[in-house]
Amino acid sequence: MRIAQAGLFCSIKKDLEVLETLLLEAVKSDIPLVTEIGTHLVNSGGKRLRPALLLTAAHAGRSFSREHIMPLAAAVEMIHMASLVHDDVIDNSDTRRGTPTANAKWGNQVAILSGDYFFAQAFSLVANEHYGEDVSIRLAKLVSELSVGEIQQDALMFTAKHSISEYYERIEKKTANFLAICCELGGMVSGADEAVCKSLYDYGHFIGMAFQVTDDLLDITGDAKKLGKPAAGNDIRQGVVTLPVIRALETSPQHDELAAIITNRGMTDADVNRALEIVRSTDGVDFAKQKADEFLDNAKKALHADIPQDVRDTFIEAADYIGKRDF
Amino acid sequence: MRIAQAGLFCSIKKDLEVLETLLLEAVKSDIPLVTEIGTHLVNSGGKRLRPALLLTAAHAGRSFSREHIMPLAAAVEMIHMASLVHDDVIDNSDTRRGTPTANAKWGNQVAILSGDYFFAQAFSLVANEHYGEDVSIRLAKLVSELSVGEIQQDALMFTAKHSISEYYERIEKKTANFLAICCELGGMVSGADEAVCKSLYDYGHFIGMAFQVTDDLLDITGDAKKLGKPAAGNDIRQGVVTLPVIRALETSPQHDELAAIITNRGMTDADVNRALEIVRSTDGVDFAKQKADEFLDNAKKALHADIPQDVRDTFIEAADYIGKRDF
Repeated sequence: MRIAQAGLFCSIKKDLEVLETLLLEAVKSDIPLVTEIGTHLVNSGGKRLRPALLLTAAHAGRSFSREHIMPLAAAVEMIHMASLVHDDVIDNSDTRRGTPTANAKWGNQVAILSGDYFFAQAFSLVANEHYGEDVSIRLAKLVSELSVGEIQQDALMFTAKHSISEYYERIEKKTANFLAICCELGGMVSGADEAVCKSLYDYGHFIGMAFQVTDDLLDITGDAKKLGKPAAGNDIRQGVVTLPVIRALETSPQHDELAAIITNRGMTDADVNRALEIVRSTDGVDFAKQKADEFLDNAKKALHADIPQDVRDTFIEAADYIGKRDF
Repeated sequence: MRIAQAGLFCSIKKDLEVLETLLLEAVKSDIPLVTEIGTHLVNSGGKRLRPALLLTAAHAGRSFSREHIMPLAAAVEMIHMASLVHDDVIDNSDTRRGTPTANAKWGNQVAILSGDYFFAQAFSLVANEHYGEDVSIRLAKLVSELSVGEIQQDALMFTAKHSISEYYERIEKKTANFLAICCELGGMVSGADEAVCKSLYDYGHFIGMAFQVTDDLLDITGDAKKLGKPAAGNDIRQGVVTLPVIRALETSPQHDELAAIITNRGMTDADVNRALEIVRSTDGVDFAKQKADEFLDNAKKALHADIPQDVRDTFIEAADYIGKRDF
């Protein structure tokens, strides 16, 4: 579901409509198969959170131009799409948000190459619009960190030795940094002051942290159908250890049983359900919820006084929404 | 084997030494695993053909600066490395040039993400050196074309309906365009005239075409050990139909038998050997050799009169070498 359909980001409704057209343009290729894959992915129901944040932040600048900012908004969504396509190959996922993944439809080969193509098209969009090298540096750093975050996550899969600070470091790289850079770039490209850009970055960072914690929480508490995911407990099944589980490992009397399940690559569905049961019986869920709320508070506090009221309102609404979302 | 060790590119020996140091720097990360993977790949015996062409071309410009050009030289090699890492995942290869691939050592997950990381680091190197957006546009286009070329190749795998012109289009995207852009960028960044840059591009294009035809030929005629590949006939085994095979399909009396083998995803080693036998009994190999020679002639003819003699000599030597190489 597009985030705009949840009643959020109404103030940039027109921007988000233009974005859809541009995304479909950007994935076109003279090879019909490439266009087909790109169109499928653009239409596969991404939330458009990243471009929505970037576009909202852009309205905080002195020289907003829809035409000028739009390729950058499309670029961040394409980078996100590319990384999801690669994630789906890595996780061997058949569906995402209820629709078939690129690897399920066209095989791993084509999916890996399509991801590379989308990364490159994103950098192409940005280079063609001449935003300046500061923008390119941030986008490249974003992709580097994203990959490193995932490599780090991969290295820790199916292990029970996780610290909360390592978890934060990992989700910072994997999610928060991306959202932070989107917010910062929106301000930068639209001529916002340095202090405002810094505050936009901080806002993005904090909602990113909250967003990932909430995402991880939903895997423990959520309705799989609403999430468009095969089942709850997906992270546990895939060996990804998240905040509620880390907390449960620290506090649960069933610590050993939980550790034995999550480190077992051959865990059954019954094992996953038992692990969920153990985690739910601890304060892991409440602990994570509280952390998410703290991040969201910090996000709101980060917003600079010079940010126009309508932009502030949109950002605050978005933060409140992340705290309540169930998809 | 580094191309410099084959006695080529002696005129830029010092540049190539500095390149090695910079590549090892560029793959460093605060995550030890990422550094380990990067170091393994840098040390895995790439030929460094792309940076060597770029650096040689740079000496044709009016304002060569080793310090300024070097990050770009490293970037093109990193893009090449990234694409090879993804290729090895796609082809499920265990070794490349006699050393274990990233996917064999660390699994597909880590290999896909490392490839993404190297792409991003390449764009990062380029953005940090402020070459201007024309350079970024070319690099992004290069990666797009590379992926599209591979997707096209993938779509035609295990089919017997190939035309020679489609083959050229495919290897243009997959190989020649990359070499052409390396040569052009070297000239551009070092202040060469537009006509010289255009001629460098053409030179790169033609040797790229010759390089790929020769590569494809070696798979039919070559010594697997020298190539660092598991066996001859690897392309046939993987469903990739190359120029000698396309020619054989057009001219061989055993056309039907050959077509039946190369379209069979379950082909045995004996089938592969029989296919090689059929191709070798036609003029497919000679035809491809002749085409490679024509491309190399065109490459030499493309070199502009204003290119300094030592640079011309190096380029001509490189072209001659590609015509004779057996690795």
